[in-house]
Amino acid sequence: MFESTFADASRRDWADDGTDATVRIATVGCGNYARSVSLPAMERGEYAAPTVVVSGDADKRATLADEFGVTALDYDEYEAGAATDEYDAVYVATPNRLHLPHVETAASHGKHVICEKPLEATVDRAERLVAACDDAGVRLMTAYRMQTDPVVRRLREFVAAGGIGDVQRAVGDFTFPVLGGDAGPDQWRLDGRLAGGGALYDVGVYPLNTARFLAGDDPVAVSATTRSPDPAFEEVDQHVDFGVEFDGWVGNFSASFSGHPNTSLELLGSDGRVAVRSAFQPGADREVTVETPTGTLDLTGAGADETVEEFDYFAHAVATDAGVDPDGADGLVDMRTLAAAQESAASGRRVEL
Amino acid sequence: MFESTFADASRRDWADDGTDATVRIATVGCGNYARSVSLPAMERGEYAAPTVVVSGDADKRATLADEFGVTALDYDEYEAGAATDEYDAVYVATPNRLHLPHVETAASHGKHVICEKPLEATVDRAERLVAACDDAGVRLMTAYRMQTDPVVRRLREFVAAGGIGDVQRAVGDFTFPVLGGDAGPDQWRLDGRLAGGGALYDVGVYPLNTARFLAGDDPVAVSATTRSPDPAFEEVDQHVDFGVEFDGWVGNFSASFSGHPNTSLELLGSDGRVAVRSAFQPGADREVTVETPTGTLDLTGAGADETVEEFDYFAHAVATDAGVDPDGADGLVDMRTLAAAQESAASGRRVEL
Repeated sequence: MFESTFADASRRDWADDGTDATVRIATVGCGNYARSVSLPAMERGEYAAPTVVVSGDADKRATLADEFGVTALDYDEYEAGAATDEYDAVYVATPNRLHLPHVETAASHGKHVICEKPLEATVDRAERLVAACDDAGVRLMTAYRMQTDPVVRRLREFVAAGGIGDVQRAVGDFTFPVLGGDAGPDQWRLDGRLAGGGALYDVGVYPLNTARFLAGDDPVAVSATTRSPDPAFEEVDQHVDFGVEFDGWVGNFSASFSGHPNTSLELLGSDGRVAVRSAFQPGADREVTVETPTGTLDLTGAGADETVEEFDYFAHAVATDAGVDPDGADGLVDMRTLAAAQESAASGRRVEL
Repeated sequence: MFESTFADASRRDWADDGTDATVRIATVGCGNYARSVSLPAMERGEYAAPTVVVSGDADKRATLADEFGVTALDYDEYEAGAATDEYDAVYVATPNRLHLPHVETAASHGKHVICEKPLEATVDRAERLVAACDDAGVRLMTAYRMQTDPVVRRLREFVAAGGIGDVQRAVGDFTFPVLGGDAGPDQWRLDGRLAGGGALYDVGVYPLNTARFLAGDDPVAVSATTRSPDPAFEEVDQHVDFGVEFDGWVGNFSASFSGHPNTSLELLGSDGRVAVRSAFQPGADREVTVETPTGTLDLTGAGADETVEEFDYFAHAVATDAGVDPDGADGLVDMRTLAAAQESAASGRRVEL
């Protein structure tokens, strides 16, 4: 089973009905991640192309227009419908609490949407965001890039085919030192109202969503604890540990905004185990171990860049009118789980979903 | 720091005040683990020697007397004080709920005790067990063999010296297919009254105690869930997931009596990470990774057999009147934590310790 599942691990299982179309994308919100990861990924894409950027910063607009050869708009222009003939879809990469108005604008322009995770800062606003796309008849993808990582997709196939038997347990962590490098405390990720939550919302959603994707299952209850010993994290959780109960198994997930950088995910099954290290870093080689009673496979460096895949997957779906795995409903399941984790951390009680 | 801590990893940090003495040990309870792991380990020891076995099974007594050249007693003889001049200490390896009477007998004979984990089937009985040794003035060691694993002791030194900064999180699992091999459902580990608990008590105590040992810290609260879908586990937990809150960090531990065999432990810190695979199998080479901002060290095959170390450590402490790390108080902390985990699983509430 190893051989057939993991041969040609970087293949695109979603591109059978190939198209020559190019989907032109407007990027709304040009923070560091959008500039250094997402825009270059679109540029490298086969089906996606960056054609417009929206930023409130005139210097940034000039730099990006030059660097990517795109039309640069400010937010008023974006809302007023400027250059709508230059893009087919919108990538929303603004702070969480601004997703809703920017997605509503895209929907009102009849543009398809790929929206960064988590969908919004609150469940209510996320539900309105999903409804706005539904009402306008535009496609919505939650930007869960791990779901388009080829190695992760191979693991999902392996798990779904019974490769590790029944899933008994998942364990995952994402520790992201948010104040590392050049980033100081004056950033929206530390602003409780703009972000909705701290490590839980920004990086905890990775092990949660990826475990759900691998196991094909949704949570039924959550128990969580949070800690914010550093005053920089007065408004948001610095550390979170959350136990997520599924039907017949449990996921123990954690996330931190400080500490030694770490990203990992592991699924333990009745008849095997899959473990991924360097699990969530953008563009990293996933270090994958697949263990079964008949042998162990180490699979490292087998995949393609998941962010290039992400925008191409979205663009291909738009071009061919295909569904996407990480849709709005998928994003809402996580929003409800994250909110329940916050409720549990505040009350010290297990919260059912 | 790597070099100095992990050089000569198998060294005995506890044997500075060496002695030539041999401590003669009576083994009470001769199940598979005692016969195949503990007795051979004593035999290989420098300070420990097996001289007496106690078993209710005449065939077993004859076989063991022959195999190890020991005096074999039945339980009546042990209680009546037979052959007390042939042993200095007692190793209690009976089912959990029988530890108390067998330790009381040892104490009444004035013999030192090394007692298998967990200390007993209930907190109350474990407290009486510890008190019996205190009252008789005999030494009590809880048989936490991981604490005498040289690699684990090196990791503790490294963590205590700040090698990974502040501990932020621990994750550990012990999945032991208790019905694997020749073992059927007719065994005391599945008997709720004799065992006190299932996977939680029998193997869950490993990640809990070892994480506590490495971090040098005690729990303050527990949240747990258990599942026993297989009817063979009607009386005890088949699967347990328990989140243990410490002062400023959380341990997420799990254990199973069925599933793909797995033993692992990981500590995430503010400035590094230590991970151990094959963490708890008797005599296994620990696969250790130590990660810090300045580099990564893979340390595998560096240790000695922890069970040989365990009995020699105990015997050396008895001979030199030294203290032991895993004493009765240490065992009681875990008993209270395990009982709190059971209470949490039953109530769905977080339980403070």
